[in-house]
Amino acid sequence: MPKSVLFDKEEVMRKVTELFWKKGYNGTSMQDLVDVTGLNRSSFYNTFGDKFQLFEESLKYYQKLQDNLTERFLNNSDLSPKQALVSLFKGINQQVIEDPGKGCFFSNCTAELGSVDPKVAKFLASNMESIILLFKTFIEKAQETGEIDPAKNSRQLALFLFSGLQGLRITAMIDQKAEDTVAITDHILSVL
Amino acid sequence: MPKSVLFDKEEVMRKVTELFWKKGYNGTSMQDLVDVTGLNRSSFYNTFGDKFQLFEESLKYYQKLQDNLTERFLNNSDLSPKQALVSLFKGINQQVIEDPGKGCFFSNCTAELGSVDPKVAKFLASNMESIILLFKTFIEKAQETGEIDPAKNSRQLALFLFSGLQGLRITAMIDQKAEDTVAITDHILSVL
Repeated sequence: MPKSVLFDKEEVMRKVTELFWKKGYNGTSMQDLVDVTGLNRSSFYNTFGDKFQLFEESLKYYQKLQDNLTERFLNNSDLSPKQALVSLFKGINQQVIEDPGKGCFFSNCTAELGSVDPKVAKFLASNMESIILLFKTFIEKAQETGEIDPAKNSRQLALFLFSGLQGLRITAMIDQKAEDTVAITDHILSVL
Repeated sequence: MPKSVLFDKEEVMRKVTELFWKKGYNGTSMQDLVDVTGLNRSSFYNTFGDKFQLFEESLKYYQKLQDNLTERFLNNSDLSPKQALVSLFKGINQQVIEDPGKGCFFSNCTAELGSVDPKVAKFLASNMESIILLFKTFIEKAQETGEIDPAKNSRQLALFLFSGLQGLRITAMIDQKAEDTVAITDHILSVL
């Protein structure tokens, strides 16, 4: 019988994603990955391929977490479209207050690899477009109900919200005062 | 006579900073640094110490460039305080349009090292405070002349401008359409 490798893939992906998130792609060594997963190198390569393949898996894992969070806030039927957007930003801000130094995994990846790795850049650009489309949909619903001025360009507003979030996450990595992240979030939302 | 090492330190710092800016601290190897500077390893270590010391030098070099740029826009006596701030943001946006994929060296450093290297985080936090103080000074001058509503909290506005810039620089690394960076910049400035 071949040796079987038994481990909880979800748990491993959680740990690996946390590691890449904190230390970056280049800052994470194979030894770090072996240590955090508890797998030996041979099981590791058999299961995940090389470090870059595992990194790509962790991008997809994080995207799923991010989508779940976004959905939880935006699909609250008690809220109007604008209230739903506001609740999402306040929810993200609450997460930032609880764990400010961490930043956003995707902002960090953009800064580290956006200009040097076309494959990662393509993934991040596609993720960005999905988020902008989602924000745009909610902005347009809010424009229909008159909560947001219909004269405003919905795509540009959505793009600004996305960009504002990147700024919040980067800034909070070095300024961890809750009142400051709240002020940034309130200013972003004031544009709606 | 001891062997002397002759090279243009300014030119070397420019090349080294460009390299760290593009590839990040961990993504830049000693061989990359030797290649880009044209120095051999022994001259390299004698002149700059280790890779981290050189990285710290490049942070200071970039800060000087950034300060010169900021000063050039803000110290234009033909402009009112608010016009000076607007001209700075439009100037930065023009740079982003000309070289969008590059991002800001300090945003990139924050994302890569802000949560793992306390010494770099401290440098970045101090740089951030200087910029916020500068923005705050101009906002308060504009509040005195009535160009910006005096009821607004000047430090929070300055903080939002700083955060907005980080977002713009990160977003432009993956969305390089000029009309998009202009839209983000205009939305940031609309808060003033």
